[in-house]
Amino acid sequence: MSLVVIGTVAFDAIETPFGKTDKIVGGAATYASLAASYFYDEVKIVAVVGDDFPQAEIRNLNNHHINTEGLQIKQGEKSFFWAGKYHNDMNSRDTLVTELNVLADFDPIIPESYQDCEYLMLGNLTPKIQQTVINRMHKRPKLIVMDTMNFWMDIAMDDLLQTLKMVDVLAINDSEARQLSGEYSLVKAADKILTMGPKYLIIKKGEHGALLFSNGQIFSAPALPLAEVFDPTGAGDTFAGGFIGYLAKVGTINFNNMKNAIIYGSALASFCVEKFGTERLLNLTPQDVSARIGEFVKLSKFEIL
Amino acid sequence: MSLVVIGTVAFDAIETPFGKTDKIVGGAATYASLAASYFYDEVKIVAVVGDDFPQAEIRNLNNHHINTEGLQIKQGEKSFFWAGKYHNDMNSRDTLVTELNVLADFDPIIPESYQDCEYLMLGNLTPKIQQTVINRMHKRPKLIVMDTMNFWMDIAMDDLLQTLKMVDVLAINDSEARQLSGEYSLVKAADKILTMGPKYLIIKKGEHGALLFSNGQIFSAPALPLAEVFDPTGAGDTFAGGFIGYLAKVGTINFNNMKNAIIYGSALASFCVEKFGTERLLNLTPQDVSARIGEFVKLSKFEIL
Repeated sequence: MSLVVIGTVAFDAIETPFGKTDKIVGGAATYASLAASYFYDEVKIVAVVGDDFPQAEIRNLNNHHINTEGLQIKQGEKSFFWAGKYHNDMNSRDTLVTELNVLADFDPIIPESYQDCEYLMLGNLTPKIQQTVINRMHKRPKLIVMDTMNFWMDIAMDDLLQTLKMVDVLAINDSEARQLSGEYSLVKAADKILTMGPKYLIIKKGEHGALLFSNGQIFSAPALPLAEVFDPTGAGDTFAGGFIGYLAKVGTINFNNMKNAIIYGSALASFCVEKFGTERLLNLTPQDVSARIGEFVKLSKFEIL
Repeated sequence: MSLVVIGTVAFDAIETPFGKTDKIVGGAATYASLAASYFYDEVKIVAVVGDDFPQAEIRNLNNHHINTEGLQIKQGEKSFFWAGKYHNDMNSRDTLVTELNVLADFDPIIPESYQDCEYLMLGNLTPKIQQTVINRMHKRPKLIVMDTMNFWMDIAMDDLLQTLKMVDVLAINDSEARQLSGEYSLVKAADKILTMGPKYLIIKKGEHGALLFSNGQIFSAPALPLAEVFDPTGAGDTFAGGFIGYLAKVGTINFNNMKNAIIYGSALASFCVEKFGTERLLNLTPQDVSARIGEFVKLSKFEIL
């Protein structure tokens, strides 16, 4: 039994009001697999890099029990590279550079040893590639979680709608939910999106928390108010990885477990933004995680008799 | 013992994507006192209207046990009038008309029978008038809650800072908290504002809920996700009125009771936006309120062992 994460493993160069980095390791699959590794031991990656990607960074993943057999290394090619600059509010950013490189013709290979996949995390990639991965699984995983973004709604909506039909959970942000549904009210947006395939919809609202919708039920999760958001890169992927990692750990899929999974995902994301890139995610202790969960409980608990 | 509410009692003309109204009754003190009346029987208003204000509307308040002895009626003058139009997102609006009328030289009179005031709600007005009301109370109330807005930060910041020193709770929205403190992070904004006088700060975030800060503690309250927001006018005043009304009912001021007060205030506000103006606030039953509270509990509850 395993949790397979597909997404980018890449280089980022990040500029925030607090400083800037050279090329550092990033990518949706990197963040999501690291986050999931705190809850589940059998995390496996499907991704592609060039031969410029440092072996030491791959070992970092392996040290977290992340299986990288499905990480293709293309000789003579370069890894995906993104450079961006965050505005002062940290909620908006400009993309400075996008070099697709190896991602341009990424054909995901699913190693035989990954065919025990029970939990599948489709990180943000073209909907076509996400679909290919589902189709290459001999047996449909028990739970498929899909991340996507406005970019694919703009240029590949038909593919996206097809892929949506094949998944159990969709995780997108509020403006994406509005774009996908054509509804401004998030309640109406959720009603529409839940007719498109997924049984569960998570709407991520960044500093305002997240909403979970399913079958007439709604859960509102808080975000931890932070004095400083150092670098928001990867927070959404970390959230998704923590979410599915926690569900893989508990093994039963229902609304109550999803609620807790959202709190665990939010807790991991709150660590992610404390430092540049994946730095904070590499060395958390179980005590760090449980103390942070305690803060979420305290933050949102009230008792009305 | 009583709860005194000072603020506007006025006419509004409202246009939303769902329709428009002629002049209807509005004003911060109207919304706040109606909301408070669901929890507390001794609510008293300090406000001013012209002789164009219908007696029937004053009787509506009296029917909710709201004492209007402190409501001045200026013969030969007209009531405050505001007209506004909401944009499609319902989060932003344009002011079309503001006619100060009787408000231009409002001198609040505190009837002798109001001097038993234990709970004082300072609705949004010039900080000078808010201060005058505090000074005209023979005995300092047990709890003073203050609402204000960016407009006073722009043109009367010194007065506002003086008034702030005299209150216990400040309730403002997120952009106002940022403007008042000069800090983007709400955690840092709260730290600064809590050195300016109030012991408690409520940051209202509309559809994203509210945050309560005090002495290193934070509470994050959800907002009820609504399929339709029909008319947001008065939601903030309704929230504040429900908040202080609930505290007046329980009688003990501490962080836990404040948390519940925020949930009760949010519940009343969620009714307010369902219809134009005060319509929905005029005829709620205790069952309506407790069912809505139940929705808030269900919405935000999770149990991590």
